[in-house]
Amino acid sequence: MGLSDVGEFGLIKRFRSHLSFHSNRIGLGIGDDGALIKPNPAWETIFTIDTLVEHVHYDLSYTPFEALGWKALAVNLSDVAAMGGLPVCAIVSLGISDFWTIKTIDDFYQGLNACSHAFQCPIVGGDTVRLPRDSIITITVIGEVESGCALKRSGARPGDYLCVTGPLGDARSGMEVLTEGNNDLEYNDARTRFLKPVPRIYESRKLLKHGGVTSMIDISDGLSSEIHHICRESHVGCRIFADRVPIASSALRWIEKREHSILSFVMESGEEYELLFTIQPEAYYRLESNQYYGISTLQKIGDIRKASEGVIIEINGETTPLNFQCWDHFHQ
Amino acid sequence: MGLSDVGEFGLIKRFRSHLSFHSNRIGLGIGDDGALIKPNPAWETIFTIDTLVEHVHYDLSYTPFEALGWKALAVNLSDVAAMGGLPVCAIVSLGISDFWTIKTIDDFYQGLNACSHAFQCPIVGGDTVRLPRDSIITITVIGEVESGCALKRSGARPGDYLCVTGPLGDARSGMEVLTEGNNDLEYNDARTRFLKPVPRIYESRKLLKHGGVTSMIDISDGLSSEIHHICRESHVGCRIFADRVPIASSALRWIEKREHSILSFVMESGEEYELLFTIQPEAYYRLESNQYYGISTLQKIGDIRKASEGVIIEINGETTPLNFQCWDHFHQ
Repeated sequence: MGLSDVGEFGLIKRFRSHLSFHSNRIGLGIGDDGALIKPNPAWETIFTIDTLVEHVHYDLSYTPFEALGWKALAVNLSDVAAMGGLPVCAIVSLGISDFWTIKTIDDFYQGLNACSHAFQCPIVGGDTVRLPRDSIITITVIGEVESGCALKRSGARPGDYLCVTGPLGDARSGMEVLTEGNNDLEYNDARTRFLKPVPRIYESRKLLKHGGVTSMIDISDGLSSEIHHICRESHVGCRIFADRVPIASSALRWIEKREHSILSFVMESGEEYELLFTIQPEAYYRLESNQYYGISTLQKIGDIRKASEGVIIEINGETTPLNFQCWDHFHQ
Repeated sequence: MGLSDVGEFGLIKRFRSHLSFHSNRIGLGIGDDGALIKPNPAWETIFTIDTLVEHVHYDLSYTPFEALGWKALAVNLSDVAAMGGLPVCAIVSLGISDFWTIKTIDDFYQGLNACSHAFQCPIVGGDTVRLPRDSIITITVIGEVESGCALKRSGARPGDYLCVTGPLGDARSGMEVLTEGNNDLEYNDARTRFLKPVPRIYESRKLLKHGGVTSMIDISDGLSSEIHHICRESHVGCRIFADRVPIASSALRWIEKREHSILSFVMESGEEYELLFTIQPEAYYRLESNQYYGISTLQKIGDIRKASEGVIIEINGETTPLNFQCWDHFHQ
């Protein structure tokens, strides 16, 4: 059975049957002109979009369709996490190429459905178009956060501590391992990290409720770039310590066999989806005494300074401006 | 100045500066991980997505970029209108090809901005990616409607009247005129209709407040297809009268010079974005006595029957099943 036997409405039917996570917040799901979501009066709505493009963001030669479905939703949920929010629902626009079959679409939906269950985010609509060449996936997520509590990029203040929720580098080593076709078991973590990232919803909510967090962003372009985002939006400077940046162990193994600089590899590693945040010192110490709510990988990597002090990194006791090259679609 | 001189963040800056409609419902707009929207406690949220793909939905050889920006938002607003709602905000994912320049992007944003102002729908975020080949635009709109009042596809009941908000056919004749490169002034209306459709937000809100409307859908695939959608979702049949289907005058002129069947041309004309709705007879008569609130083109075209009576059309006193071929991406 081919795609043209199923037709557009057949595909919508399949889509509906695959997506099994439901929520009582949804008044109307897939199948009308729009979905309807019941209000939550004391909460603000978070609204975010992300597009994944074949050959730019994913490569079907090594990406299982099920992983692609997971990741397409996960990267959006990561944006909701970066605001301190909880997901409410998502909507999917899937542009498929002739390379896709009923089987691959089913696999894609299965991954999407798994992520939808894992983070309690029902899929409430979408459209499917056929594209002449590369496939493309755009997902929009609605989330919500207690009114006035969203964690923006602009709230960092001199004196705050700068932290990350976990070790970095595995997304990039995972991508390189996959691109090389390397099947060594020792890189399983890295592959999984790249193919099926985990949006840090749990960690974000714990931190929001704990209090004292002044800004937050998710690491999608690379740590260096995200630090600059926070400093620019908050009109502050910062100093980070190279030896405090947590590095994933499989990334370390991968880099050590190559001629990469470990630091620049990790600083430029995009699609990590850990959270970078600033927190008042008093709140940080309370966090320590609460054993970081089980976020055992949480790490303080620097502190926020006045803007006039610049954005600097201390490497072996010497300071230098933080200046690594991160991903920009228009500067390749 | 080329795209790579501006870079991704330069583009975001331009994007921000072009989009000038703001609303006090928006707590945080472009530039963070997500936008924040203040709650409206007694209203439900409408959530809708639409993707336009180059060579499938638009052709840049005759589509001005400014019109493309307008249309990309308008088709989404039409979905909000089809639910009886008002727009709250929109988010844009723009995938541009090498054919796009700073100038064409500026023109696109200008059209987007004009539509955003016309229907009071601020653009609160988005992303821009560079694609290897065809461009693609995905927009998601958040709208809202008084809780419990949304106009779904599933509410039509036997005895209701079936109506459209205005004449049809111009979207298709407009597209054919443009494809042929025909510059005759007599087809200006048709070209404009195709390039810059008007979402029927005003009409939809008037009808919702009037009461008695039982179902609604916007005509994006073609009248025939939309009638079937309403009948299928509402588990009803219907009878429409061919001679009551309103036809746009420039479409009539266009068709008369060709060998098309007028009826099938109009029935299959997609992207019209008029509203198709069902209404209780008593409410319809009240609508008449209110001069249709100035919706002078509103037309009753048939009535809803039991499902067992089928979906039929009466042509010159003879009835036949309503069976025209409408647009399906997977059945070309």
